[in-house]
Amino acid sequence: MSHADSAAAGPVVLLPIVGIPEVAPGDDLGDLIVEAATASGIDMTSDDVLVVTHKIVSKAEGRILEVDPDDVDARHMVAEMEAARIVRRRGGLLIAETRHGFVCANAGVDASNLEPGQVSLLPVDPDKSARRLRARVRQLTGHAPALIITDTFGRAWRVGQTNVAIGVAGMLPVMDYRGSVDHFGVELKVTTIAIADEIAAAAELVMGKADGVPAAVARGVRYRRGRGNARALIRQPQDDLFR
Amino acid sequence: MSHADSAAAGPVVLLPIVGIPEVAPGDDLGDLIVEAATASGIDMTSDDVLVVTHKIVSKAEGRILEVDPDDVDARHMVAEMEAARIVRRRGGLLIAETRHGFVCANAGVDASNLEPGQVSLLPVDPDKSARRLRARVRQLTGHAPALIITDTFGRAWRVGQTNVAIGVAGMLPVMDYRGSVDHFGVELKVTTIAIADEIAAAAELVMGKADGVPAAVARGVRYRRGRGNARALIRQPQDDLFR
Repeated sequence: MSHADSAAAGPVVLLPIVGIPEVAPGDDLGDLIVEAATASGIDMTSDDVLVVTHKIVSKAEGRILEVDPDDVDARHMVAEMEAARIVRRRGGLLIAETRHGFVCANAGVDASNLEPGQVSLLPVDPDKSARRLRARVRQLTGHAPALIITDTFGRAWRVGQTNVAIGVAGMLPVMDYRGSVDHFGVELKVTTIAIADEIAAAAELVMGKADGVPAAVARGVRYRRGRGNARALIRQPQDDLFR
Repeated sequence: MSHADSAAAGPVVLLPIVGIPEVAPGDDLGDLIVEAATASGIDMTSDDVLVVTHKIVSKAEGRILEVDPDDVDARHMVAEMEAARIVRRRGGLLIAETRHGFVCANAGVDASNLEPGQVSLLPVDPDKSARRLRARVRQLTGHAPALIITDTFGRAWRVGQTNVAIGVAGMLPVMDYRGSVDHFGVELKVTTIAIADEIAAAAELVMGKADGVPAAVARGVRYRRGRGNARALIRQPQDDLFR
């Protein structure tokens, strides 16, 4: 059991990493993030979780396309290209399953926080992006925080989007309480908590959609370190009653 | 624009409120929470968000039933009683819409963190419970933090549960960025963030499922104060492609 597991119940702090410059294809994202964190007075430790919006990962990886900004259909075509399967369609709204297995609007294609006329695609392999970025942070700082790459997804049945994990490295994304006992000594039978999604949601509170703060550090979270990935957060089609 | 709206980008802190005793029907929950918070050195302000798991609200409101602990069918019968509509059923798994409109497993009926043989029901009107509890906190402390009552719900398409808001008072649960501009001056067209759900998820990081910490304070969140409620988080059937 690592230190992050055994810490006593205490506060959790979300620290925004401000001052990350515009990211361009080929940029060394780890370097930009570590430099901004250091300038913000945030010295990352291996118990922290570094949370990064996929937008800057997609930019660094060149997953940006130019489309005619006045041509709504062009953006829809890109979304259909990115979709492995259309789950629902109504009017201009497309809910699609991506090649990774994520179910989200427009297969993750998005035009916000980009130059006019650009759209971003999700990283090809967000778990791999997370592992690579984590390795770079370790190389630069000597510390290896767990790493979560996020996107904001809508949900069935509930209004509004929330930030979720689409790439994970260095932690188990799901806390499995099955077999453990609750406060009354009663076995918890069916409870698994998607802790990586909860950390992603928490980080959004300091990143904000319109603020241009694309990364944050979550400190004090009791998570389990290990070789986890965000694919474990995708409900397999045979277990999914809504796919 | 209130102070909570205008605060500069800064850290968000989640503070667990430890030491809340077992709650019994008729207990003054506001008093128990304020006393434990004070003993924990947490002086709530009106900019804070007080997050409370529905379990202790249900207990205080007497929404507890006794069932034969060895009779799984009895628990299912209670869930069916609580359901306004069955959304999906497979084996022992029941996804139901509650009278409030929430879509969740077993219509919110749950046996964890209760005496063996007990099950809890959701509060009859969680928004009203939130308003009442907030009024009591204001009466006791002179401060009126926003208030969120939570439950952990599963999701379509994704593994694991996350904490969400089922009752809200003193804040708008959804941040609507439509019409505002992003970092590049491009209008954000479709982004609404379910901030009350993100705060609920963040609070779960310090409450924990097995820890018996049923309340937490979220400090530093830039939310909008106002007469919000959790019903606004329920996607209306005509807008819902998955109901």
